[in-house]
Amino acid sequence: MTVPNAWRQLSVWLGIKHPIIQAPMAGGGITTPELVAAVSNAGGLGSIGAAYMKPEEIVQLARRVRELTDRPYAINLFAPQPPPGDVDPSRMLALLARYHQELGLPPPTPPASPFPSFEEQVDAIVESGARAFSFTLGIPPDAVLERLRARRVVLMGTATTVREAKLLEEARVDIIVAQGSEAGGHRGTFAEPFEAGMVGTLALVPQVVDAVRIPVVASGGIMDGRGVAAARVLGASGAQLGTAFLTCPESGAAPAYKAAIRAARDDMTVVTRALSGRPARGLANTLTEELKDLEVLLPYPLQHSATSPLRGAAAAQGDPRFMTLWSGQAAALSRAIPAAELVRELVEESERLR
Amino acid sequence: MTVPNAWRQLSVWLGIKHPIIQAPMAGGGITTPELVAAVSNAGGLGSIGAAYMKPEEIVQLARRVRELTDRPYAINLFAPQPPPGDVDPSRMLALLARYHQELGLPPPTPPASPFPSFEEQVDAIVESGARAFSFTLGIPPDAVLERLRARRVVLMGTATTVREAKLLEEARVDIIVAQGSEAGGHRGTFAEPFEAGMVGTLALVPQVVDAVRIPVVASGGIMDGRGVAAARVLGASGAQLGTAFLTCPESGAAPAYKAAIRAARDDMTVVTRALSGRPARGLANTLTEELKDLEVLLPYPLQHSATSPLRGAAAAQGDPRFMTLWSGQAAALSRAIPAAELVRELVEESERLR
Repeated sequence: MTVPNAWRQLSVWLGIKHPIIQAPMAGGGITTPELVAAVSNAGGLGSIGAAYMKPEEIVQLARRVRELTDRPYAINLFAPQPPPGDVDPSRMLALLARYHQELGLPPPTPPASPFPSFEEQVDAIVESGARAFSFTLGIPPDAVLERLRARRVVLMGTATTVREAKLLEEARVDIIVAQGSEAGGHRGTFAEPFEAGMVGTLALVPQVVDAVRIPVVASGGIMDGRGVAAARVLGASGAQLGTAFLTCPESGAAPAYKAAIRAARDDMTVVTRALSGRPARGLANTLTEELKDLEVLLPYPLQHSATSPLRGAAAAQGDPRFMTLWSGQAAALSRAIPAAELVRELVEESERLR
Repeated sequence: MTVPNAWRQLSVWLGIKHPIIQAPMAGGGITTPELVAAVSNAGGLGSIGAAYMKPEEIVQLARRVRELTDRPYAINLFAPQPPPGDVDPSRMLALLARYHQELGLPPPTPPASPFPSFEEQVDAIVESGARAFSFTLGIPPDAVLERLRARRVVLMGTATTVREAKLLEEARVDIIVAQGSEAGGHRGTFAEPFEAGMVGTLALVPQVVDAVRIPVVASGGIMDGRGVAAARVLGASGAQLGTAFLTCPESGAAPAYKAAIRAARDDMTVVTRALSGRPARGLANTLTEELKDLEVLLPYPLQHSATSPLRGAAAAQGDPRFMTLWSGQAAALSRAIPAAELVRELVEESERLR
């Protein structure tokens, strides 16, 4: 057994005080500059979830973060995927039309990819001054990693199995985020069937730590100092938390989303393809239950685009039935306190457990 | 956040030195008296997995354990389930006949319940002198719990969600085993759809600890001192390990089973109904893959009985394709060392992480 002495590694690497990373939650305007900067100012690492952002939005957001903090922060993208190919969305759109009508929306239209040019997003990140570039759903092209490396940007890749962690190490990333099955949002799984990547955080982290030589960040189900302390003794160099920061006042999550997280129980989440076409964990609602296992689900990211207007309108109307409610499995432990206070509590609580 | 100060609670309660529990693995003769006694003699709590044992076998095994140790140990049963009702097993038997032929077995015969009378099993436990009675898959009848309570037997129930933990507390059990989704063998889920009970250990344990007033034992994915230390900081009063003890020389697991565990990786397990009719986690093999999601799977426990001769013969022949290979998600961390040494290592490793 490796005795963990890795906890300080990450802080040195990233130039941060506490190895606490606010997870890059894409979509829904959650990772506001205020949230990112508050986490970084508190000594952690804030992250902009920029997957769906246009290059100019990234530039703008990063500039605003820069105004609010001079500490390191990260920007996250989804690794580009092969195009989904030609599919007929008509049956899915017919299904969604019912919900559109219910919310008073015009009928849904054929979906297109929601992603701006990846290369141009990377351009924006290169210009942004972000200390770290994190990514999920795969490994970006070598040229992209090389370009960021040349700018001394720290590269953080997401793995859900030991095999994926080794692939990331081979691609010469600097840090591995080991995403356990408890995690909210998209499963990062890219080199395996998604079911093979449903490994619990407590089982995954020590196996990844033993398999690679680079620092490992634990993610999935971490909500308080107990989870942070567990990450440390499991051999991780840091902890990444998404759901825990989602309910902070600085988070841009819709009020109904925050309320749903605050009221959640451990047995309320599902892993679903219904929202984006790719497996992701969130609170069960009408959308996840009524679209469950349907053959007419569109491939990623077309399902995302097809359901996007509905989810957006539901969020605006405060209707949790049709909203995006990504959540980890320990949402019941969430707190509605400012991000800086949360970072401080996480550090103090975990220190008391030494 | 509750600051865990619970780690010593369990030892006092059970009269053991270290809050390390060898999980009660039923079937396959794994929990030999030698294994159980070795764990208890080392200061942990050994457990006899007696679910499929006849009362006289329980008595005999318990007597042998008593000869080998005067320390506390536990006996485990499955809570009785409603009978499966009338089903036609012919299509499943036809499917299995192919494998029977391949292994040189006579054709499979219609399955019956594999369980002896629960009441008589309990009689045997009452007479056995076991310090603790642990159970899973539900809550035994109140009269049974009352009877054991009167004999000062410590009652340990298995929960996979906060809701189940609360039900166990209401039933006045003494200790809750919180079984995370990483765990090998049968999912203990009894009050929820099984998918709702697939909560990772790191997320489950602190939520259960916060929800009940009785000691909580963490289980699922714990294999070394890192996992034990994680259980402690998550607020548990102890750690239960199955897969970790399976590869000990004292374990009665078939050699081919031990070899499969030693060669396992994190992405190799599946949760399957193929072997028993109830969801359980094990290494994927021909049986789990070829019977996956078939509509002809029999209800629990008839599927268990139907596949039992095949699995038994495969184990005897050393053929992992058709064996029972229950395994947690961190089998890659297994060690083939004597049980007493494993207990000592678990304690020392976790102490170093304080």
